[in-house]
Amino acid sequence: MTRSVTEAAVAARVAAVDLAQRTRADKDRALRAMADALEKRSAELVAANDADVRRAVEADTDPGIVDRLTLTEERIAKIAEALRSITALPDPVGEVVRGSTLANGLELRQVRVPFGVIGIVYEARPNVTVDAAGLCLKSGNAVLLRGSSSAKESNTALVNVLREALADNGFPADAVQLVLGDTHDSVTELLRARGLVDVVIPRGGASLIRSVVQNAIVPVIETGVGNCHVYVDADADPELAIELLIDSKTQRPSVCNAAETLLVHKDIADVFVPRALDALRAAGVTVHGDARIAAYAADPADVVPAQQADFEDEYLSLDIAAAVVDSLDEAIAHIRRYSTSHTELIITRSQAAAREFTARVDAAAVIVNASTRFTDGGEFGFGAEIGISTQKLHARGPMGLPELTSTKYIVIGDGQTRAKNANT
Amino acid sequence: MTRSVTEAAVAARVAAVDLAQRTRADKDRALRAMADALEKRSAELVAANDADVRRAVEADTDPGIVDRLTLTEERIAKIAEALRSITALPDPVGEVVRGSTLANGLELRQVRVPFGVIGIVYEARPNVTVDAAGLCLKSGNAVLLRGSSSAKESNTALVNVLREALADNGFPADAVQLVLGDTHDSVTELLRARGLVDVVIPRGGASLIRSVVQNAIVPVIETGVGNCHVYVDADADPELAIELLIDSKTQRPSVCNAAETLLVHKDIADVFVPRALDALRAAGVTVHGDARIAAYAADPADVVPAQQADFEDEYLSLDIAAAVVDSLDEAIAHIRRYSTSHTELIITRSQAAAREFTARVDAAAVIVNASTRFTDGGEFGFGAEIGISTQKLHARGPMGLPELTSTKYIVIGDGQTRAKNANT
Repeated sequence: MTRSVTEAAVAARVAAVDLAQRTRADKDRALRAMADALEKRSAELVAANDADVRRAVEADTDPGIVDRLTLTEERIAKIAEALRSITALPDPVGEVVRGSTLANGLELRQVRVPFGVIGIVYEARPNVTVDAAGLCLKSGNAVLLRGSSSAKESNTALVNVLREALADNGFPADAVQLVLGDTHDSVTELLRARGLVDVVIPRGGASLIRSVVQNAIVPVIETGVGNCHVYVDADADPELAIELLIDSKTQRPSVCNAAETLLVHKDIADVFVPRALDALRAAGVTVHGDARIAAYAADPADVVPAQQADFEDEYLSLDIAAAVVDSLDEAIAHIRRYSTSHTELIITRSQAAAREFTARVDAAAVIVNASTRFTDGGEFGFGAEIGISTQKLHARGPMGLPELTSTKYIVIGDGQTRAKNANT
Repeated sequence: MTRSVTEAAVAARVAAVDLAQRTRADKDRALRAMADALEKRSAELVAANDADVRRAVEADTDPGIVDRLTLTEERIAKIAEALRSITALPDPVGEVVRGSTLANGLELRQVRVPFGVIGIVYEARPNVTVDAAGLCLKSGNAVLLRGSSSAKESNTALVNVLREALADNGFPADAVQLVLGDTHDSVTELLRARGLVDVVIPRGGASLIRSVVQNAIVPVIETGVGNCHVYVDADADPELAIELLIDSKTQRPSVCNAAETLLVHKDIADVFVPRALDALRAAGVTVHGDARIAAYAADPADVVPAQQADFEDEYLSLDIAAAVVDSLDEAIAHIRRYSTSHTELIITRSQAAAREFTARVDAAAVIVNASTRFTDGGEFGFGAEIGISTQKLHARGPMGLPELTSTKYIVIGDGQTRAKNANT
């Protein structure tokens, strides 16, 4: 295909009109067919992926990134299984969000409807291609997938398989389209396709998201930058605090809901900080501490002096910034200053402190006494997620199927006019 | 005040932190105090307004616009009453949107929280200044009001009264700020204040809204452009169709939910069109019809030949475009092509036609057998409205207080980690 983004978007709009009217049974059948096709053709997919992997290795790409790029038959089976699991989720389309009968007898219903056309801009992982296609299909949306050029062969092969499965099952193939382009021009075109694309969701690092937000004139849902804090309150159980800190930081350090900064109330610092430093060292974590944290280090080399940037940026690695604060107020002020409003955790036995922290900290998820790693669509029970919104408009936090829909009001009357039957 | 927009936005953010924690009782008290202050100082407000009105008259402004700009003691009393009526609305902040206890015992609640800082860009009517301030205050948001320079004296006086009432009642005055500026620079600064302004809502004509959308890098909620259609189905009751057409077109032609195009099914055209032309003429409406409509005119001068633009644009006046269509499908296709997705009406006795129209027409409101004029926050029972969203992200249709909020997830645990207690 050598379609321009605009041509692809026009074709997607046509497909979207069809998709919006499909029943759940129809869509679930297509999802199962897509999963089956991926498994059946996994040798072909692995071969296409090999080309991307070889290119990445030749370009001296970080082994972690090469690993995430790699498809194997087992991984394809998992991707297919994830598609099948979407069939178990309720169809958001048609859900009545609210409804009432007005004083003049008008029957009012607010009903979920698909957005129409969703653009996803994402980085190397090919599983996102299939996940996003599945979630958009189930929510009745056509999708324009703009993956990175480093996964070009893999994404092309995956999308071809999905499109054939759709066409074989009476769905428009253009419900799922890959948007290619070696430069950033195709992204820009996508971000400016107002009237054709209803929303663009960037999935990736901070710089990708910043660039999308700056350039878009279509609506955007920002996702996934998480400068998450763990605040250990004066009234924390030190044992529990260590356990939650280690899980939040190390259970999977490269993801957006991993902890990046530790704040410790001064009244518990003597008890907690030495043990925390030991536990973090044992877990392979480098601590970037302020002077008050450094004062607790058995060996001065155990704490790297923290700079401003340590508190500002995500590490996404086995590093953590750390500071002692004089009060809950100071902790909240620190979080307000540096937070990306993703996930913020307080560890405390105090009901008053928990209440104040949850009320005053403004983030997608505010957690009391549990790991930051729980901010996740799967963990929240939403099934698969398309990303974690860190903006306040439309969706905030893990986005499941309902977040991929808009609504419309359906109003049924029997001749009401404002002249005769106004409610106001 | 000679604050820049950015300075005003920074002050608004500080105020927003305070506002977010206020109880409903507190906010309702402030709203009543604002209403009382407006009434008490109405002579001063009328005097300030006089200056704007005099300038408008000298500039040969359209009398309708001058009328909408004008404040009298009676109008100020009405504006104050509208503020008091906001106290009767429930506080959206703190509402639990959904909640559950997860398999691992985590208690999950999604709770409404204020956006923070809302920017409103609007045209001449000074009542919007007070309405918007009241709705933002009740929903816990600070507001930056960017009114038009033609209402500068009125808006300055109104905002001063509101700010003093807030300060007298222990609220931060910076919860309500007027953003001045003779050029469009202040609008541009507002639209680029990312991180300071959470959302901008433009209220006004199509060109204002287009300019805001093109220039904003902060999130925007588009409002109020309504190219609304009345479709008279083959199975319509002609009597009812005339009544709904006349109400939709003439009950208040200058507003966004007024009808702008009439589509008539060919099978009912013989019966309906001649009567519709009579009724529209009697109501003072000029019909811009296609050839099939014109064929029904008793006097050819009764129908002006319709151009493409007649179907594309809002009239906001006593004019209507009109066409005969061969089928429900053709009506839906016409609406899909020209609609601004505000309000679309079908008049029919057929359950099948009503069901198909409501399912396939994608608009903020799809109405069966009632006037288009019902798409309104007050008429829908939401109390006051801040505008009618015609976009799909976040809010669609009339926006009441809940639409001025975001949400956050509050998660309460007792030591859950992903390592030990993952749900997935």
